[in-house]
Amino acid sequence: MRKTLLTLVIALAVVPAAHAGEGMWVPQQLPEISDALRKAGLKLDPRQLADLTGDPLGAVVSLGGCTASFVSPQGLVATNHHCAYGAIQLNSTPENNLLVDGFNPANVADEVSAGPNARIFVLEAITDVTADVTAALAAQGDDTARAREWERLSKQLVAECEREDGYRCTLYSFGGGNQYRLFRNLEIRDVRLAYAPPGSVGAFGGDIDNWMWPRHTGDFSFYRAYVGKDGKPAAYSIDNVPYQPKRWLTVSQGQLGAGDFVMVAGYPGRTNRYALADEFAATQQWEYPWVGARYGEVIALIETAGKADPDIAVKYANTMAGLQNVSKNYAGQLEGFRRIDALATKRAEEAAVLDWLRTRGAEGQAALQAHERLVQRHAQASEGRQARVVLGQLQRGGLIGSAMQLYRLSIEKTRDDAERAAGYQQRNLPGIEGGLRQMERRYHPAMDRQLTAYWLQQYLQLPDAQRNAALDAWLGGNDAAAVERALDRLYTSRLGELEQRLHWFGADRAAFEASDDPAIALAVALTPTVLEQEEKARAGTGRDLLDRPLFLQAVADYRATRGQSVYPDANSSLRITFGNVTGYCPRDGVQYTPFTTLEGVVAKETGEEPFDSPKPLLEAVATKRHGGLEDPRIGSVPVNFLADMDVTGGNSGSPVLDANGHLTGLLFDGNWESVSSNWVFDTDLTRTISVDARYMRWIMQEVFPAPRLLQEMSLPTGAP
Amino acid sequence: MRKTLLTLVIALAVVPAAHAGEGMWVPQQLPEISDALRKAGLKLDPRQLADLTGDPLGAVVSLGGCTASFVSPQGLVATNHHCAYGAIQLNSTPENNLLVDGFNPANVADEVSAGPNARIFVLEAITDVTADVTAALAAQGDDTARAREWERLSKQLVAECEREDGYRCTLYSFGGGNQYRLFRNLEIRDVRLAYAPPGSVGAFGGDIDNWMWPRHTGDFSFYRAYVGKDGKPAAYSIDNVPYQPKRWLTVSQGQLGAGDFVMVAGYPGRTNRYALADEFAATQQWEYPWVGARYGEVIALIETAGKADPDIAVKYANTMAGLQNVSKNYAGQLEGFRRIDALATKRAEEAAVLDWLRTRGAEGQAALQAHERLVQRHAQASEGRQARVVLGQLQRGGLIGSAMQLYRLSIEKTRDDAERAAGYQQRNLPGIEGGLRQMERRYHPAMDRQLTAYWLQQYLQLPDAQRNAALDAWLGGNDAAAVERALDRLYTSRLGELEQRLHWFGADRAAFEASDDPAIALAVALTPTVLEQEEKARAGTGRDLLDRPLFLQAVADYRATRGQSVYPDANSSLRITFGNVTGYCPRDGVQYTPFTTLEGVVAKETGEEPFDSPKPLLEAVATKRHGGLEDPRIGSVPVNFLADMDVTGGNSGSPVLDANGHLTGLLFDGNWESVSSNWVFDTDLTRTISVDARYMRWIMQEVFPAPRLLQEMSLPTGAP
Repeated sequence: MRKTLLTLVIALAVVPAAHAGEGMWVPQQLPEISDALRKAGLKLDPRQLADLTGDPLGAVVSLGGCTASFVSPQGLVATNHHCAYGAIQLNSTPENNLLVDGFNPANVADEVSAGPNARIFVLEAITDVTADVTAALAAQGDDTARAREWERLSKQLVAECEREDGYRCTLYSFGGGNQYRLFRNLEIRDVRLAYAPPGSVGAFGGDIDNWMWPRHTGDFSFYRAYVGKDGKPAAYSIDNVPYQPKRWLTVSQGQLGAGDFVMVAGYPGRTNRYALADEFAATQQWEYPWVGARYGEVIALIETAGKADPDIAVKYANTMAGLQNVSKNYAGQLEGFRRIDALATKRAEEAAVLDWLRTRGAEGQAALQAHERLVQRHAQASEGRQARVVLGQLQRGGLIGSAMQLYRLSIEKTRDDAERAAGYQQRNLPGIEGGLRQMERRYHPAMDRQLTAYWLQQYLQLPDAQRNAALDAWLGGNDAAAVERALDRLYTSRLGELEQRLHWFGADRAAFEASDDPAIALAVALTPTVLEQEEKARAGTGRDLLDRPLFLQAVADYRATRGQSVYPDANSSLRITFGNVTGYCPRDGVQYTPFTTLEGVVAKETGEEPFDSPKPLLEAVATKRHGGLEDPRIGSVPVNFLADMDVTGGNSGSPVLDANGHLTGLLFDGNWESVSSNWVFDTDLTRTISVDARYMRWIMQEVFPAPRLLQEMSLPTGAP
Repeated sequence: MRKTLLTLVIALAVVPAAHAGEGMWVPQQLPEISDALRKAGLKLDPRQLADLTGDPLGAVVSLGGCTASFVSPQGLVATNHHCAYGAIQLNSTPENNLLVDGFNPANVADEVSAGPNARIFVLEAITDVTADVTAALAAQGDDTARAREWERLSKQLVAECEREDGYRCTLYSFGGGNQYRLFRNLEIRDVRLAYAPPGSVGAFGGDIDNWMWPRHTGDFSFYRAYVGKDGKPAAYSIDNVPYQPKRWLTVSQGQLGAGDFVMVAGYPGRTNRYALADEFAATQQWEYPWVGARYGEVIALIETAGKADPDIAVKYANTMAGLQNVSKNYAGQLEGFRRIDALATKRAEEAAVLDWLRTRGAEGQAALQAHERLVQRHAQASEGRQARVVLGQLQRGGLIGSAMQLYRLSIEKTRDDAERAAGYQQRNLPGIEGGLRQMERRYHPAMDRQLTAYWLQQYLQLPDAQRNAALDAWLGGNDAAAVERALDRLYTSRLGELEQRLHWFGADRAAFEASDDPAIALAVALTPTVLEQEEKARAGTGRDLLDRPLFLQAVADYRATRGQSVYPDANSSLRITFGNVTGYCPRDGVQYTPFTTLEGVVAKETGEEPFDSPKPLLEAVATKRHGGLEDPRIGSVPVNFLADMDVTGGNSGSPVLDANGHLTGLLFDGNWESVSSNWVFDTDLTRTISVDARYMRWIMQEVFPAPRLLQEMSLPTGAP
């Protein structure tokens, strides 16, 4: 039997010590931490925040990977420029480059499609299924069977939830499996681009300023949600009409200042604050340095190839951006770990929990044993870690990746939908097809071959125990020459052609196994080992399904004894974080102030990307045309601001709400010092970076005027 | 008739608008700006500050190029580590390297000589000689004769002033010649090193942090002044006794905080704030870029040569440091000029003065005409500017430079002392000899030849009009081959040998003219042109002696009409500047706080020079051993601090006095944004950087203990 979450008290919630800053709270926890919210300055009733379909939470939506919010009754959606980047790129041509010039249609009818894969997810319900799931898992005595039961049940719950057309459901595990909750979203599939500022505003500072303060980025854009005339989600059609949300945010016309209350509702992706100390140590001491070094080499490869061939530069721009982002992020995390001696903190925290459990005698035994098993399994799993990275990279996109995916799909398709592996069900087919089509714009055989060669050479350096017999047989040798011979054969495959990929997308298993295409043949050769390893891994997964929640409950119980608050690690589900507008001290003698100003935008001007503001902006600043949006305390229009909230990737585009729940900005980044907080929260230095609503309004008034949208948001247009 | 300055009102002083920040005030101006001083927080009677031999000014001394102050009745002198650097280096050996380890003698008797050239100048009187000088200059109708009269009279005034043994006098021109003042100093010649912290404290941050904030440098050391048993200055002797100054500073035991009044007394070298707009334009648009680019090439030459030959690296370390300092300074100035659009400001200011003069009809004519002539002469002089730089560099030290100096000396020695060119009088001979000896440690023939070749190649690129007939004849060609042939000949000279240089130091003119040493022969060939050009230049100099003061008086008069204060450009004479402890905003979103702390020293630790603090320092910080010197407002011992005072090179080592005239720190640097203020003062961003007296005391208590000196300064030793 399921209970809606609104009626539940969260097991992990520990109330008294909640304070602004750390904490990605599930909405249901907010009434429990109402004292801290009020102390930080919230003027709304905290209970109001727990109402998913009320004001303001009802206005917050997910874009899948980013957050956004409704800001008008006509389905207007505010999010980051970088979240709408793909849609802007899709509608750009060399002659009409919206990435550079921005997009500002005269009429609603001129709004353009954000593409067939763009989505707006409107959360309608969260259902607690903890009792169902834990009962089903507990009923299984065998670890492997338990893992299978978890796979089966989770697919079943999602399928039931999605039975009604137009919905998308996700089952989330909280606190390592202490709670299971099913999120049901209306899935809006006709998403249109309504406004984007010029790239020199929306992406001002580019990669150079990424994660940096002081910041001056107008990182905002607008979408609009469309539905069929029946009000139900539908694919893009000229006949569709704007979606009318039940809730939309009021844009603040007040003056946000230093010290003021702010909160963010959004969809943070993943944090690891409850990881075992050993898991953290492996990340710091092995994963980030080892993987980071290899990513650095791959970046250099693509850079060199891209300089020689512009086609490669274009097709791998996205891959490069991703790799550079990860590399910079790893470096920042490692810097942060050293700064706060994170490993010592993790070890001390874990030791304290274990010590406490030991004092509890028999009552603490189960959790102590669970911890012991988790540590052992981590150590065992560590043995194959290099191979996991290398083989993972070999199968990531490109020729080998698509062959592996297509062959696996043909295997899964021989089963009932409910029996298929996650990711290969009927509901996943459009996504797989989209990926096969998209490869057309992200694949270049010469570059793909170079990357495959790089990872195969890494493979050759693996210890014997981590080698893969099928891959060894395929390589037929143990040196660079063997790699080249194997690649000479492999790249005669026709899977680089879209037509071929779409053909195999529909093909059956027997056809794959009869094929002499060398990529398909390699996939057929490698897949049995993959399936074998998946099966082997199930025993550990099944054990973890009991051990992880048991130990994390002990962590929560221990913290409760010390009056500390507990919130679950981020898992891509809706969270609320709150805090105050505040700067920080990055180093002795330096204080970062919480707001940047228009003058700071101009001070960065070089005339060259990414510091090339539009002329109207430079003119408006030079003539102090503030359009009534000046904050008298800083003598200018605020551009970006810092706050001590707790966010991570996925929070991009989240509405920043003021004490009255009004939209006072859009969150778009964390500071450099915050990246390590995914593992150990650093209260002193972790800050969010948001674009101020006054700057958004100023751009829409004075620089790239959109009076129609301002009116739609019930805002002054600034016209005389 | 001369009047002592204490009884005079300074013509350039304009009182009401004086404010903290800009202004290098001559001591006599202070009573005139007493309101501003009191408003800034001074608690002493401003009239007390004008008393040269009173408290505190009587304690302030010059080291010639640096400033210092007496801090005990036994002649103990506080100054910067970088001002005592030469003395520390002189007493260092590879086995006992005081530059690294510091110097902390157990007893007074163990203090070591700072070297034969070290000086402490104790100012005893300032005499106004304006009436004498201006009357003598006015009596000359011919420009050239006026220049000669100026040379004659200034030498005569100095000679009269120095008649009594043990004194050194300097005649300074203020406001372009609106005042002339003769400074009479007791010249203490036995200077000893009394204390230097380890280099990792005294030079912490090295070149990397030079001009930078946040800063954490313990840039202090102590000298002691010694005199003969008769109390009179004497050369170093074991029998000498500590000098007993009339005045010494009390070291503050209070807590300096943000906003507090501070003032600095010292010897700033040179500013150009009253330069013509055209002179400034030439500096910004030609001199700094043109000379800076060539210095950059010279730096690269020495760097390459130094890598190949460690002997060159050592011998040219000082030259390199100087060139790099100038290059970085030029770059900083150019950055600052652009930031504040200094040229537009200069042009507007000058235009305003000219407009005002034009409104004054006949009364304004003389100044307008003076301005016109100054502008014309600047334009004429600009025509030979490249040659002046190139020929100046060719004669700067090394083989050619010493030959030129020695031959010139032999010519001057044929005249009465009073008739000799400045710099070649009897009083200058010890300095010249010192230089000839010092060349032994700063000359390497291979490097000298490379540098000479570089500047000769620059010479070959000069326009015809700027070529020198004697040099052309010597070169005997116009290409690189000719340069090499000439240098092959030149570097057979024996002037690279100390013995030879000392021989020629005593030789007479005829001997030079009969010599076949190729360097001497070159000097003999080039000198007639030098003398000719000096004579030619006299006409302009003689005219400037009237025009420059006339126009600058008009500038002062104009500013007076607008209620603005006027102080003369720095000229190496004693000045006072005052202001408040305050940070600044280097860029939008960033605020520099006025104090750095012990924790900031440790945060910069890399274990490698220049960020390798001594172990006792790291331990003391780790254990929070603050020795009672913590400022509760910042929770730590302050290390360095910022203030909005107005200083320049030469102010290094200056005592920073608090509102009660107590020593609260030592000034040692300006910030990066201040370097352009030598031309146009930038009130918002110009800051001084000082080492806090509490950090000095903390080092002397907890890190490199010197209880004897602390007691001598009547300070607690921190011992339990």
